[in-house]
This record gives sequence, C-alpha cells and structure tokens, in this order.
Amino acid sequence: MGASLERIRRDIETIACFSSSRRGTGRLTFTLEYWAAVDYVADQLAAIGYERRTTIHGNTRFRARGADWDLPAVIVGSHLDAVPDGGRFDGVAGVVAGVEIARLLAERGDATARPYEVVVFAEEEGARFGRVLAGSKAMVGVLTLEALAEMKDSSGVGYLEALGSSGEKAAAEPHDVLEPGDIAAYFELHIEQSLVLESARVPIGIVQAVTGIRQYSISYEGTANHAGATPMHLRSDSLAAAAEAILSVEKHAAGSVAGTTVGTVGRIVNDPNAANVISGRTEYSIDLRDTDVGALVEFSEATLASVREIAERRGMRADVQMTTASDAVVLSPRLRQSLADVAARLGVDYLEMPSGAAHDAQEIARIADAVMLFVPSIGGRSHCPEEDTPYETVALGVDVIFEAVVQECGLGA
Amino acid sequence: MGASLERIRRDIETIACFSSSRRGTGRLTFTLEYWAAVDYVADQLAAIGYERRTTIHGNTRFRARGADWDLPAVIVGSHLDAVPDGGRFDGVAGVVAGVEIARLLAERGDATARPYEVVVFAEEEGARFGRVLAGSKAMVGVLTLEALAEMKDSSGVGYLEALGSSGEKAAAEPHDVLEPGDIAAYFELHIEQSLVLESARVPIGIVQAVTGIRQYSISYEGTANHAGATPMHLRSDSLAAAAEAILSVEKHAAGSVAGTTVGTVGRIVNDPNAANVISGRTEYSIDLRDTDVGALVEFSEATLASVREIAERRGMRADVQMTTASDAVVLSPRLRQSLADVAARLGVDYLEMPSGAAHDAQEIARIADAVMLFVPSIGGRSHCPEEDTPYETVALGVDVIFEAVVQECGLGA
Repeated sequence: MGASLERIRRDIETIACFSSSRRGTGRLTFTLEYWAAVDYVADQLAAIGYERRTTIHGNTRFRARGADWDLPAVIVGSHLDAVPDGGRFDGVAGVVAGVEIARLLAERGDATARPYEVVVFAEEEGARFGRVLAGSKAMVGVLTLEALAEMKDSSGVGYLEALGSSGEKAAAEPHDVLEPGDIAAYFELHIEQSLVLESARVPIGIVQAVTGIRQYSISYEGTANHAGATPMHLRSDSLAAAAEAILSVEKHAAGSVAGTTVGTVGRIVNDPNAANVISGRTEYSIDLRDTDVGALVEFSEATLASVREIAERRGMRADVQMTTASDAVVLSPRLRQSLADVAARLGVDYLEMPSGAAHDAQEIARIADAVMLFVPSIGGRSHCPEEDTPYETVALGVDVIFEAVVQECGLGA
Repeated sequence: MGASLERIRRDIETIACFSSSRRGTGRLTFTLEYWAAVDYVADQLAAIGYERRTTIHGNTRFRARGADWDLPAVIVGSHLDAVPDGGRFDGVAGVVAGVEIARLLAERGDATARPYEVVVFAEEEGARFGRVLAGSKAMVGVLTLEALAEMKDSSGVGYLEALGSSGEKAAAEPHDVLEPGDIAAYFELHIEQSLVLESARVPIGIVQAVTGIRQYSISYEGTANHAGATPMHLRSDSLAAAAEAILSVEKHAAGSVAGTTVGTVGRIVNDPNAANVISGRTEYSIDLRDTDVGALVEFSEATLASVREIAERRGMRADVQMTTASDAVVLSPRLRQSLADVAARLGVDYLEMPSGAAHDAQEIARIADAVMLFVPSIGGRSHCPEEDTPYETVALGVDVIFEAVVQECGLGA
C-alpha cells in the first residue's frame, strides 16, 4: 500500500515535458506549456471525479465533483511555474503529492468529514511577472486584483491580460480571496533546494519556519585611478571596500549563535571594471536571512554598521537601499507535530529544519494552519537542469503527508 | 626668457579639438583626427624649418630641413593618440614640449653639434589596435613589421592597412628601426596621472624607473546555490573567496618594505551574479607593479600563494593565467642627473619617483639613454575628460628639459 512510485514518476516526468527551455525545464505562468501542465493535473484528477476551478487570480483549485466549495478544506498543493532552464521537481513535486493523495483517498473510498482540495498557485517563482508568491499572496488578500493588474511581463503583457487570453474561464467567486477559517489545513511538499538533508542522510525535513529576509543594494563610491601610478596610501578603491564588506557579511553569518543565520553577497557590479584601473564605483547586494526575527534585526544592524564603517574608514560614500524586507513565518506547531507523529509511526527518520527559501505555505500561514515537508535535493542543486530528488523519497513524503491529511479530513486512522 | 606659456596653451588646446569623442578628447591612431593633430605639429615645426618623415611603422619624426638623418639625434617626444573620452594632456604634453624646445632652439639660433628631433610615436595607448607602445616598440625592433601587419582594430582593419590608406607617404629607410648608438638621448615630458606630485606640492618629478608589471586573470569555481537554503558551512562561495584574494593583494602591496609596490584588482566578473544565489564562478584580474625586479617577483609569488591557499581552504578550483609580464626599466642615471642639476640651478623643486604607468621612454631605454619628466595631474585624474595640469607647470617642465637638451646637443650653457 501507500503512494505509487510509478504514478509519481510518470506525473513528474510528463509535466517536465511541458517546457519552453532548451535545457532542463522552463514554464512561465499562463503560457501554453503552463496550461498544458495544469490540464494534465486536471485530467489525472478528473479520472477520480474531481472538478477544476480557476480563480480570478489565476490559481487553480480542484475538489471532488459536487463538493461544497464553501466548506473549509484540507489542502495540498504548490506551483507548476518554473524558472527558465530550471528543474522538474521545484513546485511540481508538491502538486503531484496533492494529486497522489487524492488518488489514495479515492482508493480508500470513505467519505471525508472535511473536503480535500488540490491547489496550483500561479506565479510562485515571479519569473514572468516579477513578483514571487503572487498567486498565494492574492489568495490570502495580500496582493489585490488591482496590484495584479499592474504586473507586466518583459514584453509588457499584463498578468490579468495573460490570464484572460489563455482561454481559462476564471470567474469571481465569493471565496476566491480566503480569510481565517476558510482553510482547515494546508500541506506542501517541496524539494529542499539545499544540502542539509543530504548531508545528514535523512529523507524528510519538517519545516519549522520560513526565514525572514532583508535584502540591500549597496553602492560604494571611491575614485577611479591609474592602477600603476597611484600609490596604495592615496587610493579610494571601491572594490577593495566591497571585498571587506563581503567578508564581513560572511563572518557575521557564520558567527551567529543560533546557526540559523545565512548571509550572502551574490551580485556585484564594478566600474570601470578594467584590470589596470582602480575601481571607482562598486554596487553589490546583501541578502540576510534568519527564522528568528530578533536575530535577523540584530544581524542586519551589525552588517550595515560594518558596511558604513568600512566606507568611512576608506573615505568613500556608501549608498544603502533596502530592497526586500519580510519577517520569518512560523509554520503550524499542530501540523508539525502531526507530521512528526506520522513519521515516527512509519519509522521514517526526519529532521526539523528552517526553510531559507520562500514558499507559498508562508502566505497561507497568514490565515490558516500550514506546514511544509522537505525531501532532499541531490547535491543541493535547484533552479537548474541538474535538479533531482529520488522518486522514492518523494513517495515517502507523500505517505507521511497522506496519513496527516487523513486525520485532518476526519477519517480516523 | 624660456618656454612660452601662450604657445604651449595654444598647441595643447588646438590639438584637443582634433577629437572624435563627445566628452573630453578621443583620437585613435591613424584616424583623420589623428593625422590632423600630426599635421598641426608639422605646421608648427615647418614654420621654423623642420621637415617631416613618417616611418614604415607609422611613427612621425621631425628634424631641421637638410639635417643628416643618419646622425644620432637628441630626441624629445611622446604620442598623440588618445583613449576615447580621454584628456588633452596625456601624450600631447610631451609632443608639445618637443615642439616648444624646437622653437626655443630656433630662437637661440646657434648651430647644434648634434641634430635635434621631435618624435610622435604611433599607437602608444593601444586603444585602436590593442597593443600598447606599438610605435616605440617597432622603432627599437621589438615589434616587427610582420607583427604590426597582424594587428587589427575592432572593425578588422589592419595596422599597416590603416597607415597606408591614410595617405601618408611612409617609406622604408635604413634607420626606421634604430639600434644602440642611433639615438644620442631621449627626453619625454608626461603628465604624472596620479597624486604623488600634487600631494607633495612639488611641480616636477624625475622618473627613476618605469615599473615592471605582472598581470593575472584568476577564476575561482565554487558552487552556485540558493542563498536562503544553504547553511554557511555547506557553501563554496566563489565571490567570498575572491573578496579574500582582493584584500590579500591590497595587504601585500601596502605592506611592501620598499613602498614602490602597488597591487590592484580592478576587474571582477561574477556568475550567476544574482542577489539570492551564492556565486558559482568568479573571475578577477590581479595587476602587480614594482620598479624593483626582485620585489616584484617576491610580491607575485606571495600573492599567487595566497590566491591558491584561499581556494584550497574553501574547497574550490582556482585557475590562474598570467596575462602580462614586463620587467622594470631603469631610466638613464646620466640624464636623470642632468635634469636634477638643471632643476637645482633653476631653483625648481623636484621629486625622484617611479612611473607606475607604461610609457614610450621605456622602449627607447632599450637602446639609448632615455629619461622622463613628470608634471602633476590635478586630482590625479587621467584618461578622462577631467584630466588637467596647469600650463605653468608644463612650461616649467619644458624649461628644465630645454636646458638639458642644450647640453646634450653640444651647445654649451
């Protein structure tokens, strides 16, 4: 019994073919290949009696035909959009988990006390319209229809325009924007996208919290000058200053007591960027994350203090702009406990861990009990063609979530 | 008496107008504006009886009409090509110094024991054909005619092709490639292009040596990964590694005992260069210079050892390529002494200093006594529209060189 490895493999491999990327998988929201993937999911669910509903925000929801859409459901889902040249598991694994659990519930046959729902959130990656988690944010009312209307892709096509022209019959329904009480429980299976589970040789992670993020764009203004003719003590080298800041971010993060802190400088743009010219202007990003709100604030303040101290000591101007700020979201303790209990009962090893990446679950957590389950990424690779996870561990994750869903749906063990 | 501030100002300002740059001055070798500048110089010198000769390598030489071109001359010169959006003094000041000294000699009227010559070297900047000091290297036989024939600009036009189509009647003459004994003495006035003279409030620098250069292109290969999901201890961040190397170059240079060492990382290219992705590949340049050959070797070895140690400690691959290697050139002690004596006699403050930039004088020094005199760059700026030097200090530099030229020409004081 349990989840079918073969069905899961077929679902993931079939969806991977709905792609516009030459390498790996690419599937931007509301493109033909995107709707082909949604249609495939709809066909799988139609085969066991589910109907489909596309919301005015472009999310796609599935419940058993004849189900009462006004009743709070137990929901399993994720997203089907993929970054260009991305992988086959990111998002897809979570949607396929929802589909497989629907099949397992159908095989079980009992009527559930609470409806079960599979959801596909639109534009999780932000790769087409520039805003991550757009669908789930819209579902909980954080992004309004007006805000969605203003989002455009790189060709100037609007979010709602693209949704409308794709032939989907989206209708405004009372419950397209959900409020506290409208969702009984939300589960999301996702690949980890890092090395923690693989390093620990543990097949499952129960996510305690999604980290908070502070992102900054910094620019240092030094003085461009001849690399040969300018003595060291007469320089104002913006790249050397940025190098100090990069190491300071790394040091602050590595030294954090909690060990939940990460800090990254991933982007650097240097000017004039010539081997024989001292750098005059260096722009760089700082990305700080922590699941502990207080630790993140402290980390941000310490980092910015270093950024400014370095500039001052080296006699240059520092321009600091905050580009992103979101606080950590703690996932449902009740559902985490439920997953942990199931894992223990099934004899599956698990790790409690934070999520350093953003996920739809963090938006749903604003209005309902929500939880995530991670499965390992081979080599920690993600958002690339090499993204991979053993189908066995996806199936194992589905088994654990299934048992918890059964309880939440009021079926008893 | 002495150099005419007005003539020098007019020469430099007129030549600045022969430009194809929207900002500042730009004048690529063998373009129409380049020959317009050469023609202006030729006109000035023709007015005092000089004739012009363009060599098969594109250098332009001027001697008094009827002078014996086989006799070793006392030469003053520099270059007229300018980088795009560059300044009006780089190179031009040295050619104008040669012209003004010719006028002063003409005003003086005595016949000289040795011929006097003004030279304009082609393609000093390498901005059109990609090879710095091309004209002076060709004059001393380091660059052959065959090598020049292979140099092409970004449109695919060859060096000799561009020279030929410009209408200059260049003829192969026995002495177009010069050998030891063919030049009596070479003087070059140049703007300093840095802050040493300005900081010291000294109007003149006598250049002891042109620094040696080692340039490297390094690439670090780490592992690109999610900036949020990857704990600090599981990272292989190529940008953080490069940051360490950048600071190590700075530290090695600043700590050099001689104080003649400079080290610069001016170019960095990071991949994938996104705020939320740990860097997987970072390429950067290292430019090391020292007038002391031994110190430069030591500095290079210490720097590369650090580059490799950083990569090894962080578990990533380092690819190191040497892109430039030239050794320091000591300029003529006899001519330096001569300039110092004149300066002392005229009551002009001077500084003995190295040149961190490459100049035509270093090529001529291979076969003859050669020396350089620096005048201050305001704010140390060069290769930019803001490049500036008070005309008074250019005139002062001309006065000092003139006195030394008079001696070298065998005129007596």
